[in-house]
Amino acid sequence: MNYRLLLKTIGIGLMVVAAFLIVPITISLVMKTGEQVAFLSTAVICATIGSVLIGIKNNRELIARDGLVSVVVCWFVMSLAGAMPLFITGTLPTYMDCFFEAASGFTTTGATVLTDVSACSYAMLMWRALMHWIGGMGIIVFMLIIISRRSAKSVHLMSVESTGPFKGKLAPTTTQSAKALFTIYAVLTGSEIVALLFAGMPVFDSFLHAFSTAGTGGFSMTNASVGEYNSVAIDVIITVFMLLFGLSFVLYYQISRGNLKAFAKSTEFKVFIAVVAGSITVIMLNVASFYGYDYGQSLRYAAFTVAATSSTTGFCIVDYEAWPMLSKCIIVGLMFFGAMAGSTGGGIKYSRVIIAAKAIKRDLKKMLHPNLVSVVKMDGAAVSERVVSLVQVFIVSYVALLGLGTLLVSLDNFDFTTSFTSVLSALSNIGPGLSLVGPVGNYAMFSGFSKGVLSVCMIAGRLEIFPFLIMLAPRTWRR
Amino acid sequence: MNYRLLLKTIGIGLMVVAAFLIVPITISLVMKTGEQVAFLSTAVICATIGSVLIGIKNNRELIARDGLVSVVVCWFVMSLAGAMPLFITGTLPTYMDCFFEAASGFTTTGATVLTDVSACSYAMLMWRALMHWIGGMGIIVFMLIIISRRSAKSVHLMSVESTGPFKGKLAPTTTQSAKALFTIYAVLTGSEIVALLFAGMPVFDSFLHAFSTAGTGGFSMTNASVGEYNSVAIDVIITVFMLLFGLSFVLYYQISRGNLKAFAKSTEFKVFIAVVAGSITVIMLNVASFYGYDYGQSLRYAAFTVAATSSTTGFCIVDYEAWPMLSKCIIVGLMFFGAMAGSTGGGIKYSRVIIAAKAIKRDLKKMLHPNLVSVVKMDGAAVSERVVSLVQVFIVSYVALLGLGTLLVSLDNFDFTTSFTSVLSALSNIGPGLSLVGPVGNYAMFSGFSKGVLSVCMIAGRLEIFPFLIMLAPRTWRR
Repeated sequence: MNYRLLLKTIGIGLMVVAAFLIVPITISLVMKTGEQVAFLSTAVICATIGSVLIGIKNNRELIARDGLVSVVVCWFVMSLAGAMPLFITGTLPTYMDCFFEAASGFTTTGATVLTDVSACSYAMLMWRALMHWIGGMGIIVFMLIIISRRSAKSVHLMSVESTGPFKGKLAPTTTQSAKALFTIYAVLTGSEIVALLFAGMPVFDSFLHAFSTAGTGGFSMTNASVGEYNSVAIDVIITVFMLLFGLSFVLYYQISRGNLKAFAKSTEFKVFIAVVAGSITVIMLNVASFYGYDYGQSLRYAAFTVAATSSTTGFCIVDYEAWPMLSKCIIVGLMFFGAMAGSTGGGIKYSRVIIAAKAIKRDLKKMLHPNLVSVVKMDGAAVSERVVSLVQVFIVSYVALLGLGTLLVSLDNFDFTTSFTSVLSALSNIGPGLSLVGPVGNYAMFSGFSKGVLSVCMIAGRLEIFPFLIMLAPRTWRR
Repeated sequence: MNYRLLLKTIGIGLMVVAAFLIVPITISLVMKTGEQVAFLSTAVICATIGSVLIGIKNNRELIARDGLVSVVVCWFVMSLAGAMPLFITGTLPTYMDCFFEAASGFTTTGATVLTDVSACSYAMLMWRALMHWIGGMGIIVFMLIIISRRSAKSVHLMSVESTGPFKGKLAPTTTQSAKALFTIYAVLTGSEIVALLFAGMPVFDSFLHAFSTAGTGGFSMTNASVGEYNSVAIDVIITVFMLLFGLSFVLYYQISRGNLKAFAKSTEFKVFIAVVAGSITVIMLNVASFYGYDYGQSLRYAAFTVAATSSTTGFCIVDYEAWPMLSKCIIVGLMFFGAMAGSTGGGIKYSRVIIAAKAIKRDLKKMLHPNLVSVVKMDGAAVSERVVSLVQVFIVSYVALLGLGTLLVSLDNFDFTTSFTSVLSALSNIGPGLSLVGPVGNYAMFSGFSKGVLSVCMIAGRLEIFPFLIMLAPRTWRR
């Protein structure tokens, strides 16, 4: 392990946290919520430690493993730091609660242990949303690190898999790519703020929800989430933007470079849209009887919920826990799939699902004709056998972590649906699940141990599992 | 498709059904239960059609695909035939109910749609248990067909995968292997009958439960299953024999040939035993408070339930639905794993789980050192990359079918746990699941559609999924 790199990475993370803490500090001061000390002291601690660590010289050659593991550790440390204001203000009783909430923030999950979200001050609410926004940005950096190093032979294979198996078609230099991606992220966020303002949402709320949507997070301002506004316009806008943030940023980049057919040429995009449209249709028909066969309302609820799940945002405008089991099972299925590779969303990712399905079909053919030479193709190009194999390994690892997590969380003795969907929701960075962790529920009732397990699942899922598993290997930590 | 082979295979299946129907016919006549006409007419129909089909000449060269698909279709037809006596006697109201029960029998699942098992006549009860025994024998034939053809290049790859990835070390000729395997099957069944008689179980009951255990089925004689006898001796004997039938028959064969270290050398066996022992220990401690900290009783219940699940038999002596969620989650986990490859049990199989786990570890290593040449080893020998890849594909297919099945069954609008575990239990050929399909429940409340879906899952799972998927491909059916 390159400990210098590790510490330096943590330093960068802490500096980012310190920088963004300026926002809640300002809000506290302006609105006199009295929490400025909590935010300020956190910022000072982060900035102090961060500035020391960031100054560490790292002259050694970068190894892929060390970079990835450093990012995983950085996410843990940022969550520990982001939890401080929650703890100092006494918003949540234990540090584990605060850590869960911050991990849920930075991993853009949006699961909360707050039983009354609306009791939080505006400064704290904004901090929660900002953690989502930072997390979303972090994922873009993460993708960038990996994509920009694709030419280096030693990291090629990992890179392809770690960001979801898409083909990087970004700008040649890292700086250029970074600027382009951040610009897209900022423009989309800004567009949502403007749209929400036009729809009549208050200024503060518009910023908060846009930050939360951009990171595909899901933290809102009240227990009723976006449902609180009871506005068709707001629901439609957030539905659209949730889906937009669930799309691949690589495609946006290509569009911005004049390749207007980027979306039309992407198999992953077409499948994503088909699944989303299909799910909305089935759920709309399935729940129509609940809303007096008002298909407009059914469509609104169905579209919002499917967009919230498929983008792994997890906002709610309706308690889908009351819906028929078919709709709920579709939602659980969407939780597995997650969003598109290269987006700020989580889950297995559509590209992996598509490659896995194509590989199954190919392998069945190959069983019948062993000498058949057949490659799995995606967007017209062959996918390397190494990637095909890693996609299967990824899905099996995902299922294995889901099983292990469920087993550990089951120690709390809640029902099977709660145990299973809470872990699935954490791994896929959604937020809500079914049963006790459904749209009107929260994660407060879990033990500290389970909160820890779920936090680990969130971080493991957010960073696409493999870097997390590599971190667990003892040999990773040898000097 | 070689339709001659298909029809001939169906013919053999029907002749086997007709032959075994002699047992319930005899019981009906001796005990004057009045059902001899139902059994006799079924036998006559099966024998008539069977004898016509079996006479079909098939001179064409055998293709692996056709052989495997024929077996899948044969299982469907046998289930249709085995359902006839249930329908004619009016034991169950619809033919779908009867088909479900027979499919559950021949696939050695043991899930029932009978709300009152004890209302059945002895002839009918024996027929249900015999379907398990025939099913178990059928699986041995299935393994044999595949193993015996391993030398043929065209089927080599499929063969390895279809029977679970074990190394065939059977006798060189098919006839010899068949005799050896049937002898082992018969000797083990006979031993259990004798043991149960010694334990004081009535003669009829001993035969019935031995047949049911041998096929790792699970049909019993009363709603309380084996719990009805409330005998420690019987519980212990059935626990031991359930586990024995969950072990690989290839290992028994090796033992019978003088290779006494076969078990000690098998990684799969060691892992299987370790998981079983670990699960029993944890569940025993977890449920002790339910039985006044009587660790003897806790051990008895835990061991029986773990053996019933790990062998995919599904007998019950206790309503584990009342146990803490940790124990229930362990049971669900064991349902996924199933039994050892080469046994009469179902599930993913331990060999696949082990190879998948080793492959994940290897692939993580390979990510860090792309030029590393590392093979997955099992029992000291390298596992081919093709098998490693197919194991992953198998697990992903398994999870995909589980998801699709759950979605379809959810149309019945039962709770998530019921929908999910009923499909899991069917795919892994267990019998009981959790919630409404728990030990005291049954499958009667499902719609005809769901019963159909679950029946298909049972057959797909029983024949290791790939042959079933191949059957679904339209090109399979071209002349």
